[in-house]
Amino acid sequence: MPQISTRGEQMPASPIRKLVPYAEAAKREGVKVYHLNIGQPDIETPPAILDAVRNADIRVLEYSHSAGNESYRKKLVAYYHRVGIELTHHEIMITTGGSEAIQFAFLACLNPGDEVIIPEPFYANYNGFACAAGVQVVPITSKIETGFALPPIAAFEQRITERTRAIVICNPNNPTGYLYSRAELEALRDLCLKHDLYLFSDEAYREFCYGGEFVSALQLAGLEQHAIVMDTISKRYSACGARIGALVTRNKEVYQTVMKFAQARLSPPGLAQVLGEAAVDLPADYFDEPKAEYLRRRDRLVARLNAMPGGFCPNPGGAFYAMARLPIDDSDRFCQWLLEEFRHEKQTLMLAPATGFYGTEGLGKHEVRLAYVLNLTDLDRAMDCLEKALECYPGRTA
Amino acid sequence: MPQISTRGEQMPASPIRKLVPYAEAAKREGVKVYHLNIGQPDIETPPAILDAVRNADIRVLEYSHSAGNESYRKKLVAYYHRVGIELTHHEIMITTGGSEAIQFAFLACLNPGDEVIIPEPFYANYNGFACAAGVQVVPITSKIETGFALPPIAAFEQRITERTRAIVICNPNNPTGYLYSRAELEALRDLCLKHDLYLFSDEAYREFCYGGEFVSALQLAGLEQHAIVMDTISKRYSACGARIGALVTRNKEVYQTVMKFAQARLSPPGLAQVLGEAAVDLPADYFDEPKAEYLRRRDRLVARLNAMPGGFCPNPGGAFYAMARLPIDDSDRFCQWLLEEFRHEKQTLMLAPATGFYGTEGLGKHEVRLAYVLNLTDLDRAMDCLEKALECYPGRTA
Repeated sequence: MPQISTRGEQMPASPIRKLVPYAEAAKREGVKVYHLNIGQPDIETPPAILDAVRNADIRVLEYSHSAGNESYRKKLVAYYHRVGIELTHHEIMITTGGSEAIQFAFLACLNPGDEVIIPEPFYANYNGFACAAGVQVVPITSKIETGFALPPIAAFEQRITERTRAIVICNPNNPTGYLYSRAELEALRDLCLKHDLYLFSDEAYREFCYGGEFVSALQLAGLEQHAIVMDTISKRYSACGARIGALVTRNKEVYQTVMKFAQARLSPPGLAQVLGEAAVDLPADYFDEPKAEYLRRRDRLVARLNAMPGGFCPNPGGAFYAMARLPIDDSDRFCQWLLEEFRHEKQTLMLAPATGFYGTEGLGKHEVRLAYVLNLTDLDRAMDCLEKALECYPGRTA
Repeated sequence: MPQISTRGEQMPASPIRKLVPYAEAAKREGVKVYHLNIGQPDIETPPAILDAVRNADIRVLEYSHSAGNESYRKKLVAYYHRVGIELTHHEIMITTGGSEAIQFAFLACLNPGDEVIIPEPFYANYNGFACAAGVQVVPITSKIETGFALPPIAAFEQRITERTRAIVICNPNNPTGYLYSRAELEALRDLCLKHDLYLFSDEAYREFCYGGEFVSALQLAGLEQHAIVMDTISKRYSACGARIGALVTRNKEVYQTVMKFAQARLSPPGLAQVLGEAAVDLPADYFDEPKAEYLRRRDRLVARLNAMPGGFCPNPGGAFYAMARLPIDDSDRFCQWLLEEFRHEKQTLMLAPATGFYGTEGLGKHEVRLAYVLNLTDLDRAMDCLEKALECYPGRTA
């Protein structure tokens, strides 16, 4: 029997999805499971953008341009202009979700054996794309005590080697919700210029910032040739299933190289490009409502978590995630126990153990990630469950 | 300025798309260009499957299962049953076009430095996916004189090394239209079993066979653990832009490994899965009409090509491509000349130089690929142009 590849063996399984069978078993028992474990928003996809697909006049659903429909890329120029980023449509490549933008950036800019530095905890799938590209992830720990602020630049300097080629950030951050400050980003810029490193900036959650100023990697003067932004409409318009994202860079050589990978896969999804294009035309105040809703949820969630004995949750500045420290021995065990054994009024909740977001073995054992993608009522019920669970969890610490 | 990656440099540009600027320039001049260069069918996408998307009741366009919607995979079990292939939905992985199925197969089964043998001429993008995966393509030449039949097994034996891990075929073939016989496939099966090689079978054009029997790699007894089929709805339902394909294998370890790559990119396109699922419900006689149309076109195209002095075109058994030998010095030069200089009644045609489909340097100079994706009237006009062009092409041979 033929063997699978070494990279196939090394490819990490999704750390979140491994708990799914336990959730399914609980549901089969009739238990209500509150899902705070994944970044699947419950916010309605704007009907207007679904209508754009319904009303599209399509006789033959043809391949689009490999870089995405020109009309869509031109619309996106207007979108980026509105958020203070000046681009041409030759600097925007439509991708199959933000996922493909990450993949393209890794393939076009990094060689097998190269290293990328990523502040941890980080989006677990960076590991998968790094594995597929033969790239080594070098984590630098950000701390819950500082609200997961950028680790000191000195810590980056210490980990830079001859093989280091890029720094990856997610801003605002998944899983921590941390919003990087202008000062932090400028420090990263200086570091990248000093060592000639790419800055890959995943800005999936750009529109969900609560108070602080959002600064894009594309707005950092001097970093034009080093900045590559991975973007997506998934969270922005609650359209995760569309699979439409973008890779944005002013570096022409990178763009042309990415174009070759884009041509090999022919084109990004066509129906969903219609949806993405329509999203740019949503009224300017479209984000007000989902943002206000997320903000209410964040405030409730953070307050509830900090009110629990032994609980600690820094206040996230963006996205719709929070990382909380809980008085538990092992977050994997705790999250499984919630699904397998704990019941409160025939309900329980599903959380993401933080271990899956750390590259350093052993970290994250006392932390969980919570996605506030449930309405306030359900969120409160989920927090009631968590509070009760912490009271009776056998592995409770302190 | 940071460098792009070595694989990014080595990544081949699309051999077909490099002529696009010349076609665009011709059109700007007001010249009508007949496109026989790409496999973009002109057949209408079945309105019923577009209607399924229009009528889909979607409140939140969520991520689907990473393997694709279970309902769709179950439907596909019925589709494969109809074409004589027995599967469960746990053996079908929905992918973002056939392209992603190729990519997943390469990543999950092949290590960097491994070799795959592919009969040439072959679908040029295999080169791109091989490059992205760090895999070496070893071509074995099939000859126009035999209608591009499978090269002798002895030729494969000669090229098998310690690094050989798979054989890739496309059946019926793009670019040659050749339909592999049962005897050829059984010989390949025996070879794969003897050397423990995967057989990657790209069956995108399965439904378009004209007379001969189609045999799937999944129907080869004994090859269950070695056969991996790459499939797609792109050509089958004239839905190239949907970007829905499938990787199909009975090898559980391969399936589970592919699943990890699938999880990293979250899910295949959601709207297009609705379309794909509806396609399975098209009436049983759906293919009769497009197949009859392609057959008429094939017959006309082949007859016209063989009637041209110095022209030779074997009769393809499937797909909607033909490879023709023409009395020309250099197919790249000829195809560019058609767009840049040749005009017949303000018309010209665009062909794909065969050089892009050969892995062996220097082959394909006297051949072109023609996709019969135009109606009979336009096809005749295009052939009129070609006939005239061959009369006056300065690089005419013989």
